[in-house]
Amino acid sequence: MDGRKHDELRPISLEVDFTKWAEGSVLAAYGDTRVLCTASVEDRAPAWLKEQQQGWVTAEYSMLPRATETRSAREAVRGKMGGRTHEISRLIGRSLRAGVDLKALQDRTITIDCDVLQADGGTRTASITGGFVALALACRRLIKSGALRRDPIRRFVAAVSLGIIGDEVLLDLDFHEDRDADADVNLVMTGEGGIIELQGTAEGTPFSKAHLDRLLEMGRVGIDTLVQAQRNALGL
Amino acid sequence: MDGRKHDELRPISLEVDFTKWAEGSVLAAYGDTRVLCTASVEDRAPAWLKEQQQGWVTAEYSMLPRATETRSAREAVRGKMGGRTHEISRLIGRSLRAGVDLKALQDRTITIDCDVLQADGGTRTASITGGFVALALACRRLIKSGALRRDPIRRFVAAVSLGIIGDEVLLDLDFHEDRDADADVNLVMTGEGGIIELQGTAEGTPFSKAHLDRLLEMGRVGIDTLVQAQRNALGL
Amino acid sequence: MDGRKHDELRPISLEVDFTKWAEGSVLAAYGDTRVLCTASVEDRAPAWLKEQQQGWVTAEYSMLPRATETRSAREAVRGKMGGRTHEISRLIGRSLRAGVDLKALQDRTITIDCDVLQADGGTRTASITGGFVALALACRRLIKSGALRRDPIRRFVAAVSLGIIGDEVLLDLDFHEDRDADADVNLVMTGEGGIIELQGTAEGTPFSKAHLDRLLEMGRVGIDTLVQAQRNALGL
Amino acid sequence: MDGRKHDELRPISLEVDFTKWAEGSVLAAYGDTRVLCTASVEDRAPAWLKEQQQGWVTAEYSMLPRATETRSAREAVRGKMGGRTHEISRLIGRSLRAGVDLKALQDRTITIDCDVLQADGGTRTASITGGFVALALACRRLIKSGALRRDPIRRFVAAVSLGIIGDEVLLDLDFHEDRDADADVNLVMTGEGGIIELQGTAEGTPFSKAHLDRLLEMGRVGIDTLVQAQRNALGL
Amino acid sequence: MDGRKHDELRPISLEVDFTKWAEGSVLAAYGDTRVLCTASVEDRAPAWLKEQQQGWVTAEYSMLPRATETRSAREAVRGKMGGRTHEISRLIGRSLRAGVDLKALQDRTITIDCDVLQADGGTRTASITGGFVALALACRRLIKSGALRRDPIRRFVAAVSLGIIGDEVLLDLDFHEDRDADADVNLVMTGEGGIIELQGTAEGTPFSKAHLDRLLEMGRVGIDTLVQAQRNALGL
Amino acid sequence: MDGRKHDELRPISLEVDFTKWAEGSVLAAYGDTRVLCTASVEDRAPAWLKEQQQGWVTAEYSMLPRATETRSAREAVRGKMGGRTHEISRLIGRSLRAGVDLKALQDRTITIDCDVLQADGGTRTASITGGFVALALACRRLIKSGALRRDPIRRFVAAVSLGIIGDEVLLDLDFHEDRDADADVNLVMTGEGGIIELQGTAEGTPFSKAHLDRLLEMGRVGIDTLVQAQRNALGL
Repeated sequence: MDGRKHDELRPISLEVDFTKWAEGSVLAAYGDTRVLCTASVEDRAPAWLKEQQQGWVTAEYSMLPRATETRSAREAVRGKMGGRTHEISRLIGRSLRAGVDLKALQDRTITIDCDVLQADGGTRTASITGGFVALALACRRLIKSGALRRDPIRRFVAAVSLGIIGDEVLLDLDFHEDRDADADVNLVMTGEGGIIELQGTAEGTPFSKAHLDRLLEMGRVGIDTLVQAQRNALGL
Repeated sequence: MDGRKHDELRPISLEVDFTKWAEGSVLAAYGDTRVLCTASVEDRAPAWLKEQQQGWVTAEYSMLPRATETRSAREAVRGKMGGRTHEISRLIGRSLRAGVDLKALQDRTITIDCDVLQADGGTRTASITGGFVALALACRRLIKSGALRRDPIRRFVAAVSLGIIGDEVLLDLDFHEDRDADADVNLVMTGEGGIIELQGTAEGTPFSKAHLDRLLEMGRVGIDTLVQAQRNALGL
Repeated sequence: MDGRKHDELRPISLEVDFTKWAEGSVLAAYGDTRVLCTASVEDRAPAWLKEQQQGWVTAEYSMLPRATETRSAREAVRGKMGGRTHEISRLIGRSLRAGVDLKALQDRTITIDCDVLQADGGTRTASITGGFVALALACRRLIKSGALRRDPIRRFVAAVSLGIIGDEVLLDLDFHEDRDADADVNLVMTGEGGIIELQGTAEGTPFSKAHLDRLLEMGRVGIDTLVQAQRNALGL
Repeated sequence: MDGRKHDELRPISLEVDFTKWAEGSVLAAYGDTRVLCTASVEDRAPAWLKEQQQGWVTAEYSMLPRATETRSAREAVRGKMGGRTHEISRLIGRSLRAGVDLKALQDRTITIDCDVLQADGGTRTASITGGFVALALACRRLIKSGALRRDPIRRFVAAVSLGIIGDEVLLDLDFHEDRDADADVNLVMTGEGGIIELQGTAEGTPFSKAHLDRLLEMGRVGIDTLVQAQRNALGL
Repeated sequence: MDGRKHDELRPISLEVDFTKWAEGSVLAAYGDTRVLCTASVEDRAPAWLKEQQQGWVTAEYSMLPRATETRSAREAVRGKMGGRTHEISRLIGRSLRAGVDLKALQDRTITIDCDVLQADGGTRTASITGGFVALALACRRLIKSGALRRDPIRRFVAAVSLGIIGDEVLLDLDFHEDRDADADVNLVMTGEGGIIELQGTAEGTPFSKAHLDRLLEMGRVGIDTLVQAQRNALGL
Repeated sequence: MDGRKHDELRPISLEVDFTKWAEGSVLAAYGDTRVLCTASVEDRAPAWLKEQQQGWVTAEYSMLPRATETRSAREAVRGKMGGRTHEISRLIGRSLRAGVDLKALQDRTITIDCDVLQADGGTRTASITGGFVALALACRRLIKSGALRRDPIRRFVAAVSLGIIGDEVLLDLDFHEDRDADADVNLVMTGEGGIIELQGTAEGTPFSKAHLDRLLEMGRVGIDTLVQAQRNALGL
């Protein structure tokens, strides 16, 4: 639709230090999707972790009301978070924790806020990829300040969406491609190609194991590119 | 732990007509996990479907406060549904819709309530498998009463959980097995082996494509058994 | 309507150990009304009792959405508990506390959850009668484990509904009888016939002292039968 | 405690037209308990009554935060109404409806707001007695304006609390008497002595049928005095 | 409209000890506007002030549902406070704190509840003027009881509304004048004429600096009269 | 503190078309304060305006959780909007409506969302100034598309904050200046210098009429500069 090949990511950008207060701040763009990811460090683990001598990483995802084609009501106005918001926040948190040694964080909580400024497909995957960089920046700052001696980051974590349209497999779907897809997969992987999360949903027609194999192969290549973009953003 | 083989389901039971008011009612048991699934038919499609001349299937999942080892506060008392509840409700709804021709439902909504009376691992998969039977019973009643001429059910849908512990792959985990698993997969499939939902989560150690292949193969066999149990419950 | 005499209870059943996690668990049935009552022990008194060296017994009542003829929205989905739910929960809690020596519970809280699986009139009275058995089972377990030396149960507590239809007085109304009644009374009594709670409501026509006298006499007999059923369930 | 006889009401006052906007407005005082009762007429029946060609009477009870000895948090601030508020609102509404011919109200809703300015025992009974006068004033205004031809009020409704302390029976308890009572009864009656609501609660020691008989006899006399005060307030 | 001159206040009354439980209690009337203001002392500063060795004064404003020409839904029923309520509560709190030496309060919180019994314009200004008297009464009681040695009140604080209608400037608008005004100003001043809060809003036509100067001059005179009424109420 | 003169604005920037979906979109910056303002057009007036044949302009203000020095909890997570958010949203809405001929909007609602990406003082004034440009862009688009014939914008509206520190008067305070100010004024004016909103608050020491005069004079000059920036952004 936009001239890309099926296995080609949209233009990816990870702009660090987009805002000034947060311990880590990244504006992540996958094509026209733009997510502001910030990492906030709090010197306190959640109450339920008190006796386990480890820290925690959590995430909160939200869309600005007019990030989308038509305006959505604010969840704060409606007085409750929707199921989709909960689900994506939990996914981001779980994914990022898989990249971190929580013991090394000691009794700290790092909250990754992912606020979608503009949505055009792939907001959850851009949130994970960008949120990881914000998290790494915050850890780096903790080390520089002497608060931590050992880096809690133990592996890179990045994410990409994939879809099946007809018999074609596509990488990194935009809003219109996503709407038309028969199946929709979100893949979170480590820099070494280990699977952290795999969420596949058939929107009507069930899909086969053969399709899944092709999706995972294509996703693996996309993740490599994304991890390289993360390394560049972190100056590594 | 309980003498099962790794690829063996716990004892499965699908007791129909467990309650009397609902259009479809099933007590689904996977071992000690017991979920009361009811299907309620409303002669009205949701407002946002008004102009599309089709019906809808939705699901709500909940746990009784003492379904679990320790009591949890009621979501009605806390005044909001938790993220996990939202996420599972959405999963059940999506999965069951994949088995239904929504056009054939005309302007009806069928709500599948899955209330966990006792939880011992696999509550979401038992909800899908049992909820499908409740849904099929409700459809059958609509046909018998002459409200529908064509059966909206177009394929069987069942679900099972799987896990990786160390290097072993296990089918249908109970609560303690689930707690110890390195990775956790929920698989929703059709009777023909098409994938409807696949949700895999690494709890710490990423898992490999090879592991995933073994999980899917084992899951496929489990689903066959579950679909047979559904057929038996429906007298087919 | 169902062939019962006016002063005859519906078939009563109190099935203990219906679920496995709770310290006490009873499936209470008054005819087609079925309530799952569980008792959960927490080794902590409520904050506001801190300095009074006594325990507490509280109750929470809820109906599954399709326990009734037509489906009701979940209170967790609506984000608040309705007035009826509050009122019945408070009634159950007060009634059960009247059977217990709270000092003997020391600094423990026992929560009685009464979840209506199927409603056909008398859900609150079945909850009290069944909840009492669950409570007694939990106390028995505390004694067996050595946590308590003295049994906190000091008297049996059971409940029954009554109604006036025209000039007739009826015991233990089912859903349709209740709907047609001119007045509706819920009676909670001790095994010795002391009154714990008496809630009478005229649905239109006021009722007389003479009616009330007949209701209480008939209720007294019903309570005797219910207490006997409780004794049987507890093996006494 | 305050020099009253056991069967003597506290000084009762029903001051009409305490505020100017409401269709009916009464400041009801039972001793130091003061409740502002207003009746608001809306020319619309609730949605669920649409097809029954009748009106509705409903009530909302609330306490100002410092109506009591120590300040309570506002329910609007806590974001939800407490169980006690719900329960009393429902009691007031049911009691007042028993005095009204809802058909004669046609498609109108009258809302009785009972806001406790100062609480000293008996706030729910003062609300019912005062609320009835506000309701009657609003009906009178509807007749005067020609909106109604027939008076919807068909009987007087008043309420009083009673208690048992030791072996003594007391009428119209104030806050301290109520706190010390072994049992607590709220009685709502018609002007002719018919029972509309009877709510008796043992606070620890169960009470006997003999006690109840004495309570009802004493209550009956109190109600007569209260109905006379209502008549005076209405200039009848 | 009611025969007043443009720069004349409505009849002002500040009736102390209107209720008996609160540490300070005032019924404030500006014409037909009547607000019950109570001051409640708590021996604890808010958590966020813990380490600053000072007290706090806060306010909560609310309208009874039928304080107004037509009934409004209760905020407790709707489950949330409206923006207007929040805004006015904050204004009252800020205004009163400007009159108090918070250090002298030590670790106490005084909550000023302003409940509008009848609204006819100027409810927020009557709340501030009356709330100040309730606050001063509570401080006086703390001194009398020996809890405080130094009076935390350091200056009088009173408030009045003003408006522009056409080219006229008016003092202390009632409901109908307020509705017709082109601009609306609320002025909070000290007894010495210092400005504490000034909130001016054009309802359509912007207003000029010249108008503002006339409003402030007229407001100053009104405040003098109000502070005198406060002194009288406090017996100073 | 940052080398500015007392009457000098921070660097102002109004970047139009910052996002792609909204009918009007502006990133407004006052120094380090950055607010994303979007205008969303809906072809429907609010229900309560139905019969008045006019449109409406409303605003919603929010801060991203880490827009500030320390992270704040999301209002969607807490389940309710705070008083400050309500108050500022209402201020922005009122201010912008003063610039618009609502009749000319016909039956449309324009919602201005002001989401603070980074806060450093003056977030509400930047929201008004930027929100006005977003609103003007949306109106321009309605005219271009032929939906409107007459421009609903009838005057420019801009806003600036001012403060008093000691005896000095300052324009456009940043976060640290604001924290230290004795008094704080927000001024909303038209391009012609008419006052739309004036909100002055003494944070401790009351301020005098003489101070106010100096503030308004300085504010007037700041507004002129801001309106010029608005004209430039709109290409006028």
